[in-house]
Amino acid sequence: MKVSTLQENLNKSLNIVSRAVSTKSNLEILGYILLKTENGMIKVSSTNLEIGVSSYVGGKVDKTGEIAVPARLFVDLISSVPNKKIEIEVENGVINIKSENFKSNIKGLPAEEFPLIPQPKGKVNFKLKKSSLKEAILSVVFSAAPDESRPVLSGVYLNIKDNNLFFAATDSYRLAEKKIKLEGKNTDIEIIIPARSLIELSRVLEGEGNVEVSIDENQALFKTDDVEFTTRLIEGKYPDYKKIIPESSEIKIKIKKGELLNAVKMASLFSRETTNSIRFLLKQKGVLEISSPESQIGGSISDLSVETEGKGGEVFFNSKYVLDILNNMKEEELVFEMSDKVSACVFRNEKDNDYIYIVMPLRT
Amino acid sequence: MKVSTLQENLNKSLNIVSRAVSTKSNLEILGYILLKTENGMIKVSSTNLEIGVSSYVGGKVDKTGEIAVPARLFVDLISSVPNKKIEIEVENGVINIKSENFKSNIKGLPAEEFPLIPQPKGKVNFKLKKSSLKEAILSVVFSAAPDESRPVLSGVYLNIKDNNLFFAATDSYRLAEKKIKLEGKNTDIEIIIPARSLIELSRVLEGEGNVEVSIDENQALFKTDDVEFTTRLIEGKYPDYKKIIPESSEIKIKIKKGELLNAVKMASLFSRETTNSIRFLLKQKGVLEISSPESQIGGSISDLSVETEGKGGEVFFNSKYVLDILNNMKEEELVFEMSDKVSACVFRNEKDNDYIYIVMPLRT
Repeated sequence: MKVSTLQENLNKSLNIVSRAVSTKSNLEILGYILLKTENGMIKVSSTNLEIGVSSYVGGKVDKTGEIAVPARLFVDLISSVPNKKIEIEVENGVINIKSENFKSNIKGLPAEEFPLIPQPKGKVNFKLKKSSLKEAILSVVFSAAPDESRPVLSGVYLNIKDNNLFFAATDSYRLAEKKIKLEGKNTDIEIIIPARSLIELSRVLEGEGNVEVSIDENQALFKTDDVEFTTRLIEGKYPDYKKIIPESSEIKIKIKKGELLNAVKMASLFSRETTNSIRFLLKQKGVLEISSPESQIGGSISDLSVETEGKGGEVFFNSKYVLDILNNMKEEELVFEMSDKVSACVFRNEKDNDYIYIVMPLRT
Repeated sequence: MKVSTLQENLNKSLNIVSRAVSTKSNLEILGYILLKTENGMIKVSSTNLEIGVSSYVGGKVDKTGEIAVPARLFVDLISSVPNKKIEIEVENGVINIKSENFKSNIKGLPAEEFPLIPQPKGKVNFKLKKSSLKEAILSVVFSAAPDESRPVLSGVYLNIKDNNLFFAATDSYRLAEKKIKLEGKNTDIEIIIPARSLIELSRVLEGEGNVEVSIDENQALFKTDDVEFTTRLIEGKYPDYKKIIPESSEIKIKIKKGELLNAVKMASLFSRETTNSIRFLLKQKGVLEISSPESQIGGSISDLSVETEGKGGEVFFNSKYVLDILNNMKEEELVFEMSDKVSACVFRNEKDNDYIYIVMPLRT
C-alpha cells in the first residue's frame, strides 16, 4: 500500500472514525483503525462491534493495500503533523509516514484481524437531510432510558408511516416524539436503534447534504457523501406509545421558555437532594406559580406572567424531566398543556407542530 | 440585616468567592459563604482554611448584620434569578431573597460559626499590576512539585531584591523564573506561597488595576479594588536555585516555537507509555533533529530548520518538561541553549529577558 494525501483531510476523517474506537475493550484490534485503498480513495474505518464508522479521504493511490494501525497513536500523530502533504507506505507490516521534514514508522496489524463491519445489503430505504436527522435525534434521544433493564426503551423508535418518519423515545416517565415529512414514496418501517449509537451518529452529521438510510433485520446504515455509519438494531417490540399522548387538555398555557427555565431551576435547587419534586400551580388567570416543596433547607416561589386558557389547577413534576425539555426546545415561546394532577402533561413549541413532549406527573 | 443589590453584581462576587468553598470538608461551615455588611457595602467571603477570598458588592444597606449561607445552594440560586434588583433580608436565621416575581428563603447559620480569615496587619509591602502578577504566576507555577514530599517545592518562591520581584518554582527536575521590576523603593522579602493558592489567585485577577500585597510571617494578602485574597505561607528555606542557572552555554539555537512543539509532540507519542524520553540532536549547522527512541510501537524523527551558534551535540529530555514550557511561552521565537549531555539546558523567549526556564537532561 502506498498513498498520499493532505494532513488536513486525513485528520478530519480520523477525528470522525476515532469516535467508534474502543480503547477499553479486551479485544486489542478494536483499538485499531483500518486503513484501506478503495476506488482510488483512502478509506479509514473503526468499530466497537455496536457501531462501525468509515470515512473516505481523497488522495493519490500509488499502490493498493490495507492494514490496521493503532488508533490513538496514529490519530495523535497525524493531528501533530504540519498541514502539508503526507505520504503513507506500508512495508512488512510497518506503516511509514513521511511529510516535508518529518518521518515516522508505526507497527501495524494485518487487515484480516480487523472485524468485518456488517452492512445491510440492497436498496436505500429512505433519505433525508443531514440537518433534519441531526435535529430529530437531538430532540428525542435524551428521553430514552439510560439503562438496559428494558432493552427497547434504551433505544429510539424510528417508524415510517404514510411517508412520515417518526422518531420516539421514552423511559416510561416521559416521552418525546418528532415527525419528519419524507419526500417521495416510502415503504413503512419500524426499527429501534440504540440511543448511544444515535448520539454518535449526530456528532458526525455536519454541514449540508443528505443521508441515505438502508436497513435490514439486524442493522442500519447511514450514508453521507463521505461517511458510512453502521449500527446494530435493538430487537423487540416498541410499546404503543401513541395512546399516552393526550387527545386534548383542559388547560393551555403559553409561556416564555427562558422565564420558565429560570423558575424551574430555582425551585429544583431545593429538592435536588431529595425528591426532585416541583409544583406548577395555575393560581389565577395569567399567573403560573412554580415552586419547590418547603424543605429543611428552605424553599422558593416564582410567579410567571403567562397566557392561559381554562381554569386553575396544579401538578407536580420531577424537575429533571422538565429541565431536559426546556434545555432542548428551540423556540422562545412554548405551550404547556395539563388537565388534572394525574393526567399526562404536554410541552410543545408554539409554532412547530411536529414535536411533542409528554411528562407524567408525580403522584403526591 | 437588610440589603439590596443587582443580581449581576452579586453573582459576579459569588463566582469569585465560591472558588474557596470546600464542599468536601468535614467541617460543614466551610461549605458556607459569609454575608456581611461592611462600610455600606455587602461583603461575601469564603475560606478553605488555606486560602480565604472576600469580594465587595455595591448596593444599598438598610440594616447591618451578618449570616452564613449554604454556598452551593445560594450560588446556584442567585445565578438563576433574573438580572434585576434583589432584596435580601435576614430574620431569625433565615435569609429571605426577593426579586421582581420571585421569592425564596434559605436557612442560614450564625456568622460566629464562620472561621476567621486571618490577615496580615500593617502596611502594604509592595504593589504591582494585576496583569503582571497573573502572567508571572502562570509562567512559573506549573514547575512547582505536584506533591508535598518536600513542602517548599510545592510552593512558588517570591523574592524581592533591589526592587526586583522574582517568582521561582522548581520540582528539582526543571525550574522557571520570572522577574518583575517593581516601582518605588521596596523592602527585600522572601516568602513561599502554595502553588495551589496562586492558581486560584490567578483566576480572580481579571481586568485592569493594581494589586497591593501585604505579608507577615504566616500569610499574604493580595488586595485589588474589590477582592481580598489571603493565603497561608509555606514555612522553610527555599533552595538556592540561582546556582543551577548556567552562566553560559556552548550551543545556542533559535527555533520557531510552533514547529518545535509539533516535533516534540510527535516524538513524545512513542515514549509516553514508557520513559517519556525524547532526543534533541544538533546534527549539522542549521538542522535540529527531534526524535523518539525506536520502540516496540515505532518511532519518529523531525528535522527543524533553525539558526545555530556553536558545534553539534545531543541531549535527552523528559518530553513532559519540554511540552510544559512550549505550551506556556508567549513568543513565537525561542532560544534554546545547551552545552553537553549532562548540563542543564535553557529555554528563553527570544525578546523577553526576564523569563528563564531550565531543564535537567535525562541521563541515558
